[in-house]
Amino acid sequence: MISEAIDDLRDLLGERLSTGTSVRELHGRDEAYSAPALPDAVAFPETTEEVSAIMKVCTKYKVPVVPFGIGSSLEGHVIPIHGGISVDTSRMNSVLEIHSSDLDAVVQPGVTRTQLNTELRDTGLMFTVDPGADATIGGMAATRASGTNTVRYGTMRENVLALEVVLPDGTVIETGSRARKSASGYDLTHLFVGSEGTLGIITKLTVRLFGQPEAILSATCAFETIEEAVHTVILAIQIGLPMARIELLDEVQMRGMNTYNPDMDMPEKPHLFLEFHGTEAGVREQVEQFEAIAEDLGVSGFSWATKAEERNRLWQARHNAYYAGKSLRKGCEGMVTDCCVPISALADCIAHTKKLIAQSGLIAPLVGHVGDGNFHLLILVDPESEDELARAKALAEAVSQTALKFGGTVTGEHGVGTGKMKYMEQEHGAAYALMKTLKQAVDPLNLMNPGKMVAQG
Amino acid sequence: MISEAIDDLRDLLGERLSTGTSVRELHGRDEAYSAPALPDAVAFPETTEEVSAIMKVCTKYKVPVVPFGIGSSLEGHVIPIHGGISVDTSRMNSVLEIHSSDLDAVVQPGVTRTQLNTELRDTGLMFTVDPGADATIGGMAATRASGTNTVRYGTMRENVLALEVVLPDGTVIETGSRARKSASGYDLTHLFVGSEGTLGIITKLTVRLFGQPEAILSATCAFETIEEAVHTVILAIQIGLPMARIELLDEVQMRGMNTYNPDMDMPEKPHLFLEFHGTEAGVREQVEQFEAIAEDLGVSGFSWATKAEERNRLWQARHNAYYAGKSLRKGCEGMVTDCCVPISALADCIAHTKKLIAQSGLIAPLVGHVGDGNFHLLILVDPESEDELARAKALAEAVSQTALKFGGTVTGEHGVGTGKMKYMEQEHGAAYALMKTLKQAVDPLNLMNPGKMVAQG
Repeated sequence: MISEAIDDLRDLLGERLSTGTSVRELHGRDEAYSAPALPDAVAFPETTEEVSAIMKVCTKYKVPVVPFGIGSSLEGHVIPIHGGISVDTSRMNSVLEIHSSDLDAVVQPGVTRTQLNTELRDTGLMFTVDPGADATIGGMAATRASGTNTVRYGTMRENVLALEVVLPDGTVIETGSRARKSASGYDLTHLFVGSEGTLGIITKLTVRLFGQPEAILSATCAFETIEEAVHTVILAIQIGLPMARIELLDEVQMRGMNTYNPDMDMPEKPHLFLEFHGTEAGVREQVEQFEAIAEDLGVSGFSWATKAEERNRLWQARHNAYYAGKSLRKGCEGMVTDCCVPISALADCIAHTKKLIAQSGLIAPLVGHVGDGNFHLLILVDPESEDELARAKALAEAVSQTALKFGGTVTGEHGVGTGKMKYMEQEHGAAYALMKTLKQAVDPLNLMNPGKMVAQG
Repeated sequence: MISEAIDDLRDLLGERLSTGTSVRELHGRDEAYSAPALPDAVAFPETTEEVSAIMKVCTKYKVPVVPFGIGSSLEGHVIPIHGGISVDTSRMNSVLEIHSSDLDAVVQPGVTRTQLNTELRDTGLMFTVDPGADATIGGMAATRASGTNTVRYGTMRENVLALEVVLPDGTVIETGSRARKSASGYDLTHLFVGSEGTLGIITKLTVRLFGQPEAILSATCAFETIEEAVHTVILAIQIGLPMARIELLDEVQMRGMNTYNPDMDMPEKPHLFLEFHGTEAGVREQVEQFEAIAEDLGVSGFSWATKAEERNRLWQARHNAYYAGKSLRKGCEGMVTDCCVPISALADCIAHTKKLIAQSGLIAPLVGHVGDGNFHLLILVDPESEDELARAKALAEAVSQTALKFGGTVTGEHGVGTGKMKYMEQEHGAAYALMKTLKQAVDPLNLMNPGKMVAQG
């Protein structure tokens, strides 16, 4: 059946349907530590109509479909574990509309976050969600991504206002509208945000924009202990300080930062990387309030970045934390965890996690979007060592269990893919059965990214 | 079958299952202008387990179930148009947990918004969603309610973090967690928020809290024309002014306010009612920025309320706008519209709506949460006049069509119920069929609030 599907798709797309090995290999993996698997072919649609036609062909021949943005997912989301057609949205990469008065933009799914911000530069507006990778907006919506300034501006959950989606049978639907709120019917937008391509293919997104702040101030500061850093964060959140970014990097990660960034030489202690947005006066006031809290908790070495250039260097370094962490050990692979707990549990959860790392005997730098209660370990492993891989998996497993024990979730922002499926039953209980019911209803043939998130059959 | 269900429910609930006429009549209507219909019985569960047992009985005998909060809905949501059991959650009215560090609270569905805020008073925290009525939090989640300070703090969509829900077959599920964000599975929380009791009964809610602001300043100001008032709002939103409230009342509504509130004597011109939250300095800065915009647009008569007492009087008057509107015409009934459009379309949409009102020959004061693009008419009709009723319905219909024409929604915050069902196909197109698919999957026997939002069969 797959060969007939490929024939039909070639008629439809011509050269934009590829069965070449190198193209298939590029669509057979993501940035996770998961075994690759090749699609039978890769389709490069340019329009919603083409995506709809692709879905109709794949439904006709019962061929799996795996939506693909840029391949930066971290839990195996885009790996075609059952073969089929990888639908690459990279040619659907136009910013279609920018509505300055409404603070929103309409984009195609293949637009990346930096592309959108580049096109927005002269408007005085910005798109705020910033995962480490320069992901596509479509992929970010599909995984409910977030990033360093979620604490102020929200995740994709808060930043997607409306979607156009192609359903498994090829039907094109629009969810939501550009109105700021609505009480009209089921919230389909949120059903598709975070659905990881298991219910349909996102072909258009209306995303929320914010005004570029009048004043921006970034800073780094160090603490003697990770507990003091986390307690500073908790207090700042509690008094309602509208911080734009508040990121934790532990002493191990700081060593990696110094190693990886030739011009960086910071104390190898737990750090917070901060950013404040507002009016000139407002930012000054936030900074004063933050300093007062941090000083009570033994902060040292505030370093302020007021110039755009310094700020960009700082946040570029933060976005490259993954590579900085990996630089701590030559030739290693990195296994990333993604625990998120209520803020009140964060200090205890991190303390427990640090014990687990020590017990594992592995190196695992810690970075966290701590204003959201979310932190990651980058567990460094020698990919040749069975023993290390086993210990790394055991550590990652223990971290996920810790998240659940503290009332949290096994994934704050990376998603489920194949990597986190084993925890779904435990995390969601009877609600997981309802997720399967929804999947079955929307995709009865189980063609959309099969084997991800919700196990069928 | 209903009599057997009632027998089983009486065994379960004893005196807390009522078939008395007066109790049934209280559960046979809401605040909408819709024909009442009586439930066969009213159940008053006290625990989630009892709600689950009720659902199992009703599923066994295929009896409709209509969840009931306090009856303040406006589109016929709680009217048992197919009879069955009204499940009144008023005895599930405990605030179960308050987590100050996490800025959230766990409440039962029958807790009202003012009850929650009363219990929060000493914590320095507040629950922000404030529809006109003192609705239950469960009902507010079910209708995706919002209110006067949504522009700053969001609707129930943004303020519900997690839910416990009893499904039609009696299964109890938990959606979400107290973690601030998650990428773990389908977003069931948002599926139930706004589902109007058609998918299950909400038995517990985790809601977001905010710190009470250090400084609050309220004001009213007048404009010569409604366009100037709306343009002031648009500009304030565009520059990112974090206003807590920005409400429009037209000249007709202002006449009603003066009539209804004995101590009020304000110019009968279009007004904005404003509130600013922040630090002392932050509020001053916001006020200066707002005044600069408003003065360019011909504002007059700023009146500032700095004392809590004055502020409360102002917002109490705003919350009673419905009754103030009705006071314009003795013995009249009010028909309420609920249009919401993108902010950029708001001025044109309101101008068009004012023309429609003039054409109708009816009195219809206008109030709006204009920072959200949402406004209501209260169309005043003599309930004895067939002709007036027909004109009022035609006007409401035209307003809904206007909302759709301007890229908006027929309901910003009141919900669909029975009143807005006729627009669903037009507003949502093919997406409405998907809503029906979801309803069918979750509630295959169509027992949950049947005949509302999604037409089955």
